[in-house]
Amino acid sequence: MNANENYQGAVCPIPKIEYDKILMAHGGGGTLTHQLIKKIFISQFGNEVLNVLHDSAILKVESKRLAFTTDSYVVNPVFFPGGNIGELAVYGTINDLVMAGAEPLFLSVSFILEEGFLIEDLWQIVVSMKNASQKGNVKIVTGDTKVVDNGKADKIFINTSGIGIIPEGVDIGPQNAKPGDLIILNGRIAEHGIAILSAREGIEFESEIISDLAPLNSLVSLMLNESKNIHVLRDPTRGGLASTLNEIAAQSNIGIRIYEDKIPIAGNVKAACEIFGLDPLYIANEGKLVAFIDPADAEKVLNQMHAHELGMEASIIGEVTKNNPKTVVMKTAIGTNRIIDMISGEQLPRIC
Amino acid sequence: MNANENYQGAVCPIPKIEYDKILMAHGGGGTLTHQLIKKIFISQFGNEVLNVLHDSAILKVESKRLAFTTDSYVVNPVFFPGGNIGELAVYGTINDLVMAGAEPLFLSVSFILEEGFLIEDLWQIVVSMKNASQKGNVKIVTGDTKVVDNGKADKIFINTSGIGIIPEGVDIGPQNAKPGDLIILNGRIAEHGIAILSAREGIEFESEIISDLAPLNSLVSLMLNESKNIHVLRDPTRGGLASTLNEIAAQSNIGIRIYEDKIPIAGNVKAACEIFGLDPLYIANEGKLVAFIDPADAEKVLNQMHAHELGMEASIIGEVTKNNPKTVVMKTAIGTNRIIDMISGEQLPRIC
Repeated sequence: MNANENYQGAVCPIPKIEYDKILMAHGGGGTLTHQLIKKIFISQFGNEVLNVLHDSAILKVESKRLAFTTDSYVVNPVFFPGGNIGELAVYGTINDLVMAGAEPLFLSVSFILEEGFLIEDLWQIVVSMKNASQKGNVKIVTGDTKVVDNGKADKIFINTSGIGIIPEGVDIGPQNAKPGDLIILNGRIAEHGIAILSAREGIEFESEIISDLAPLNSLVSLMLNESKNIHVLRDPTRGGLASTLNEIAAQSNIGIRIYEDKIPIAGNVKAACEIFGLDPLYIANEGKLVAFIDPADAEKVLNQMHAHELGMEASIIGEVTKNNPKTVVMKTAIGTNRIIDMISGEQLPRIC
Repeated sequence: MNANENYQGAVCPIPKIEYDKILMAHGGGGTLTHQLIKKIFISQFGNEVLNVLHDSAILKVESKRLAFTTDSYVVNPVFFPGGNIGELAVYGTINDLVMAGAEPLFLSVSFILEEGFLIEDLWQIVVSMKNASQKGNVKIVTGDTKVVDNGKADKIFINTSGIGIIPEGVDIGPQNAKPGDLIILNGRIAEHGIAILSAREGIEFESEIISDLAPLNSLVSLMLNESKNIHVLRDPTRGGLASTLNEIAAQSNIGIRIYEDKIPIAGNVKAACEIFGLDPLYIANEGKLVAFIDPADAEKVLNQMHAHELGMEASIIGEVTKNNPKTVVMKTAIGTNRIIDMISGEQLPRIC
């Protein structure tokens, strides 16, 4: 490696950062991920669109607002209960567009394949991506394929980028939460992460735990038809509900109070978390969203959600406070207050 | 792996395909890549936008036409003479937009990092991406970071996707070549591939061979100002000039005749190709384009190109014929005719 020799950019001193090598935790969605993004990426790439750190960038094209997002998927194992890496890549990117209030329209798909990967497995992934794109109502319009030597990737990595259009009157962003907003969660947490972990470790529970992977566009479309006063939407994927709420609290400069007994979780998932020693608040979801809504509209949105298969167990799990800005506090089931921090290490690597 | 067990899509028999595993040649840009794209990807994802197999998809948003493209970069080594993986990811995607006649505007950037990758190297890559995006006049508006375990990737892979706008009156596509069109190439071929190979093998030549990596937007903007009768633009990257011309011949259903003595190549690159036993027509470029132009406009476009630093050695290398559709024929320097096929194997893996 002769990095310096060929490096032609302006001299630019490296920022002070905690570690000199990439750790698994830099990809975990917690404080190390945020540090890497802020100090290395934003410090160089930063501009008024990127700095919002939304799930999607919002771009003006004539009178329309486009949402634009990207994600690379490296989940291990590639096939898991409830889906595979291909469906995850389609639905994950659809959901990032939806979290900006956009109607997803177009996806790109780029494969990095390891030499020796079975065509049969690739075919299954591709067929399920086709089905997922039909279910999610998007078109795959452009793509790319790269192959790397055996041992230089892990079977298959997939990048999907997506474009959607934001309807007029919709203004959703992680900086828009307001004191008094009620926080709705659409269902049970921690199922995706625990499904992946169980599959990876080969652990079987009495009843199989299945990923909640699903496209959220039709649910959100129902919500937005009911109210334009939805201020924030976010899908609590990597880093789980706790990290998502912390990000919103920081970006909107508000406090968040949630109630443990209002957060739906399946009994077998709760039990699995106890066995693994994991906190479900930090476990990834792939078919969940939190919505921050004007209190006047929250009930009617909730009623609409209850009529949708992905919102049947939706509930109001908390509210936005003026007090304790940038902090998430949970009232526990036994009545104490617990501060819910951003995670610092890595709970579960490669869950998406 | 329990693929079938978790597979929930409709039963869809796997197409007949030559190999049952992914080979390096599936990523080489030749016949095996095309087979994979056609039989596995297009057979499932196909739609009227994707099927064009342009460097970019062309999307209608209100009265505007957007170009949308994606590429994952896996080049080895990460730093090479003339650039690094980050600059390649920025310029490569800019060039794919430009080949649709678009003005590049926005990029997404998604990193897959191997655990243990040096932050110092990442920083150099990021700084040079920032400089490249400024030079190429695009904004990085959204991004993603994933980390995989040590040994499960090769240092760093980068996906960039891009959005541009196609000006009115521009109609460029690989299916648009017409008999009589003259074919312009903007300069010397095979420099990127040979630079990568030399760096990888640690071979030094008397004069260092440097990648031609460069953003082509300002050159193409000059060309389009001179003439709207540019029918095809294509950057001969993976698979080289030979593969690109074969793709255009097939998609436009025309014949192509080129002249060996008109194709610029540096003496040291030619010598290196002889040493490695490689045909320069199949070696990747990263700052080159071929343009298929109405013969009435070719000379004046060529003159404009000569005034640009990336077009000083531009020349007319051949023309489109009615005869021999879907075939590329080269008149060699010694006066014989040689059919230039699409490559079937893999000349150089991981050059982009």
